[in-house]
Amino acid sequence: MPLSPEQQAEIDSARAQSAATRRPTAPALEEILYSALPVLDHGFVRVVDYMGDDAAVVQAARVSYGKGTKRVSEDAGLINYLMRHRHTTPFEMCEIKYHVKLPIFVARQWIRHRTANVNEYSARYSILDNEFYIPKAEHLGAQSTSNRQGRADALTGKDAERVLQILREDSQMTYDHYAEMLNETDKGEVVDPNRTGLARELARMNLTVNFYTQWYWKVDLHNLLHFLSLRADPHAQYEIRVYADVMLETVKRWVPLVCDAFLQYRMGGVHLSEKALQAVKRMLGGEKVDQKESGLSLREWREMLEALGIEPK
Amino acid sequence: MPLSPEQQAEIDSARAQSAATRRPTAPALEEILYSALPVLDHGFVRVVDYMGDDAAVVQAARVSYGKGTKRVSEDAGLINYLMRHRHTTPFEMCEIKYHVKLPIFVARQWIRHRTANVNEYSARYSILDNEFYIPKAEHLGAQSTSNRQGRADALTGKDAERVLQILREDSQMTYDHYAEMLNETDKGEVVDPNRTGLARELARMNLTVNFYTQWYWKVDLHNLLHFLSLRADPHAQYEIRVYADVMLETVKRWVPLVCDAFLQYRMGGVHLSEKALQAVKRMLGGEKVDQKESGLSLREWREMLEALGIEPK
Amino acid sequence: MPLSPEQQAEIDSARAQSAATRRPTAPALEEILYSALPVLDHGFVRVVDYMGDDAAVVQAARVSYGKGTKRVSEDAGLINYLMRHRHTTPFEMCEIKYHVKLPIFVARQWIRHRTANVNEYSARYSILDNEFYIPKAEHLGAQSTSNRQGRADALTGKDAERVLQILREDSQMTYDHYAEMLNETDKGEVVDPNRTGLARELARMNLTVNFYTQWYWKVDLHNLLHFLSLRADPHAQYEIRVYADVMLETVKRWVPLVCDAFLQYRMGGVHLSEKALQAVKRMLGGEKVDQKESGLSLREWREMLEALGIEPK
Amino acid sequence: MPLSPEQQAEIDSARAQSAATRRPTAPALEEILYSALPVLDHGFVRVVDYMGDDAAVVQAARVSYGKGTKRVSEDAGLINYLMRHRHTTPFEMCEIKYHVKLPIFVARQWIRHRTANVNEYSARYSILDNEFYIPKAEHLGAQSTSNRQGRADALTGKDAERVLQILREDSQMTYDHYAEMLNETDKGEVVDPNRTGLARELARMNLTVNFYTQWYWKVDLHNLLHFLSLRADPHAQYEIRVYADVMLETVKRWVPLVCDAFLQYRMGGVHLSEKALQAVKRMLGGEKVDQKESGLSLREWREMLEALGIEPK
Repeated sequence: MPLSPEQQAEIDSARAQSAATRRPTAPALEEILYSALPVLDHGFVRVVDYMGDDAAVVQAARVSYGKGTKRVSEDAGLINYLMRHRHTTPFEMCEIKYHVKLPIFVARQWIRHRTANVNEYSARYSILDNEFYIPKAEHLGAQSTSNRQGRADALTGKDAERVLQILREDSQMTYDHYAEMLNETDKGEVVDPNRTGLARELARMNLTVNFYTQWYWKVDLHNLLHFLSLRADPHAQYEIRVYADVMLETVKRWVPLVCDAFLQYRMGGVHLSEKALQAVKRMLGGEKVDQKESGLSLREWREMLEALGIEPK
Repeated sequence: MPLSPEQQAEIDSARAQSAATRRPTAPALEEILYSALPVLDHGFVRVVDYMGDDAAVVQAARVSYGKGTKRVSEDAGLINYLMRHRHTTPFEMCEIKYHVKLPIFVARQWIRHRTANVNEYSARYSILDNEFYIPKAEHLGAQSTSNRQGRADALTGKDAERVLQILREDSQMTYDHYAEMLNETDKGEVVDPNRTGLARELARMNLTVNFYTQWYWKVDLHNLLHFLSLRADPHAQYEIRVYADVMLETVKRWVPLVCDAFLQYRMGGVHLSEKALQAVKRMLGGEKVDQKESGLSLREWREMLEALGIEPK
Repeated sequence: MPLSPEQQAEIDSARAQSAATRRPTAPALEEILYSALPVLDHGFVRVVDYMGDDAAVVQAARVSYGKGTKRVSEDAGLINYLMRHRHTTPFEMCEIKYHVKLPIFVARQWIRHRTANVNEYSARYSILDNEFYIPKAEHLGAQSTSNRQGRADALTGKDAERVLQILREDSQMTYDHYAEMLNETDKGEVVDPNRTGLARELARMNLTVNFYTQWYWKVDLHNLLHFLSLRADPHAQYEIRVYADVMLETVKRWVPLVCDAFLQYRMGGVHLSEKALQAVKRMLGGEKVDQKESGLSLREWREMLEALGIEPK
Repeated sequence: MPLSPEQQAEIDSARAQSAATRRPTAPALEEILYSALPVLDHGFVRVVDYMGDDAAVVQAARVSYGKGTKRVSEDAGLINYLMRHRHTTPFEMCEIKYHVKLPIFVARQWIRHRTANVNEYSARYSILDNEFYIPKAEHLGAQSTSNRQGRADALTGKDAERVLQILREDSQMTYDHYAEMLNETDKGEVVDPNRTGLARELARMNLTVNFYTQWYWKVDLHNLLHFLSLRADPHAQYEIRVYADVMLETVKRWVPLVCDAFLQYRMGGVHLSEKALQAVKRMLGGEKVDQKESGLSLREWREMLEALGIEPK
């Protein structure tokens, strides 16, 4: 359960409010505004504000291109054109703000994307809750031997049990010791008057990186799509990908035309290098091409065949 | 007249729309949403979208400080605290989008602020209108002799007349030649079928930098305040300051508590260097301090006296 | 002649100096350090400082991947891998600083790239030189009818002559009037004691955007390559492309392995959308595919055929 | 001991190299280039590259101000002027690259500064070393009761012992379990062939945030000074302040004039709000001013008195 009753009440109250605005609105996104979309065992993603819609992208493009754009008159066509030719600035004209609860090690990957605004819960000021991420057994992938940063099949039986035991026990124990060192409740009351509590900014260092933190994360649509192109990708770590997947759903509700163009021209496509393009051209001309003469490395050759759906011999 | 009848009709139509939203709204800003606030002779500033309000700043700060912030319970107090101690990230949680029409030379100063999103009208694609900035006579400042980047008293009589004549005639002539080189109407029709028109991207190079351009400019509140602290300052060039002044009014409508704090703690205050602080301490202790022994340069000494409202002897 | 004798002497003196350093050096770039590489009629590009080399990219990647990267042991292979998979952060570890002299309208395109540091010559403080860009006759492209932002064949005969006449005369006249309004030499001496000079920040507004300005522009290698991918592209305006072309040569001298990878994987390749990829797969499988059933728009279909070197029927 | 013999050998070898360069050099910084400056129990800061020097700041300012700057002819004077009037862009023309080893919880504070380039050691790819931060007993501050984010006096006796015992034992135990789950050596050899090792990207989640990570961090001088103004401040957490202190020493070696100006005009000074300035003016005029009529809150009043070195009554 990612939410306390208090938090749920706060969300319900925010959702109950409604006001008139002259701004563009995205009704499908309004439907889920403030709602906590669950991710992992205790995490969530909430859209807490947004600015702009599909039409705002079009409008910004029209300012740039002025009277010169009459011919591409349809919104979807113009958005596709912008996406295809990487005219990125009109997508920067939309903005969205998320409230996210996520494990610290996921937050550390996420924060590498610097072109966003962040306000994170501070364990210097406040006491962290006793909430930590424990993967489901089916996600306990073994280390991949072919890919340094990947997972192979999940552990099974005793191997899986032992891992889950370690994660649970160590998380609980480090939290108990965190609480002991603090020697105060989250309301600031002293627990044991015979001991002096350690400063919060120090005590927190005993927590493992699967503990949950939370933040407000605000980003423009262009940079959000860039984030999603990397993090909703099969090569991303599962634990961040599930956040990206949920966020992609919110993008669909917010700017459906942009989302379609993104899937068609960015996520679903492939980039061919100069040599790969040469090889494809020759194949299309009916030539047999083999890896060696293509100039591609064995790895690139395989990646190209896979992208083109050709079985390697 | 900054707006064409078409543009005014478009604005009226946008202003007539209203939709329900669950998002925070800023009613005083909604009142002027989309309206063109006139600046200089043909320019304007229009707020075309916004996200967040005073409460959004408070909310972001509360996420950061969590349960630790109970004591600073009042919103205005918390906002003042954030502004005073330069905790800037909560102010990044609000965003605003302007449509601005401005002379090219003002746009060139403005664009130095890189932490914003911009879509500018492109003279590669489209034809610029015949609109250029001519200062009022009272703004035709002479070159200041004490300050390399400043203006002294305005020119008068024949000197002023001659300047205005030059600016008007040269602007009009370079535009006429621009149109001649283009040899097309803004609807793309050929004017003189016996001549070939020059590409727009080339013809534009004949225009002077007092011609008007326009752009969408989107920025977060923190970076907007930084912009205003520099551009609403008496040292800023008059022609950009008038834009900043109008924008400051929109900030007041949008986030009144933040605006008050900004005026109190940023615009209205003064920064004392280490040596200036030493001098002030000694003066408060009743000592006579003179420039030489203060360690301050003559220029710094004068700046300090002026800031403290002390007449130099 | 882009350089005054004074400037040339300064450059010669800077080039004559040499010091010992423990930092990585790029000898081929040192050869041309500080030299003015001419661009257009009065412009130039000078490399005035740099940090890092090919090995610095490799080193940064190795920190990220740590002991896990033993297998990709060769520098060129690792750099290709990073470029191919858009692992961009290691390329941010190199930095370069240019001194560029360029027409104002080129500077306005250039500055849209915000992820760089800029110090531009200020016409508020100082007086601009009487130098403006006049295109060669062969670059006076007509407006393209198929492409709103492109040029067709060059004007000829009287059409070209008239354009060159306008550009030359208007530039010279606006400068003469600029000088008249200033009423001071560039050493600050009054020219005509019976007139009051206009402030520099105002007088400059009479200059056309083909006048030259100059700046220091500092950027990291990743963002420089992004800039070059857009501006060394055939779709970029000729007047900025010639700057990008010269800069690409400096990149070749600085980080030759990165430059090769950039040309192979970024500049020389092609991106296929999801539908284009489907079409290519089917063609490779021996099917006839036509535009309609491909789901691609006519324009996309043509772009795909062109990229694949297939003649449209 | 922060360095392994291998690392020390690598550093010695890098330090032994020397090449000729035409670039500006900072001899005092060259002296310590690549050397590991120890911080905390296992951390370090190393300068691994730099670009520019004091003169580069001056040169950039001169480009901006052009011939207009003749009067401020001395470098130190110009640098002081730039710092005092917050003309920040010339400081962006210098760049420095650090290699830093630091506890994860420090890295998490540090990374909030987004205007820098980072390559961090990745525990997805590689195995972390068994190195964690244990504070010295004298740094085990109690939670401050007056300041939510501060420390009071250090714990003593049994309280301190217990904290150190917890931190040591939990760190060691979570690492042992991390290694057990990995079931591989850092050379990739399987430890126990009867068990399947967990993927590195998952196993790492069992480590506490006092474990050391490392990164390359590259930043321009302006943003570095901003970082130092916040992190070398007494309000910063001790564990990040010690890094900032060491980095400030490297700045002194690199750009001594800039460093002096920074200490004089940024670190050593004080900012007075509008109301505080009014109060100071009145005091200087001989009036008695008390908190209530000053319009300052009690807290602000105290902060002002403290800044001015006045004993509160």
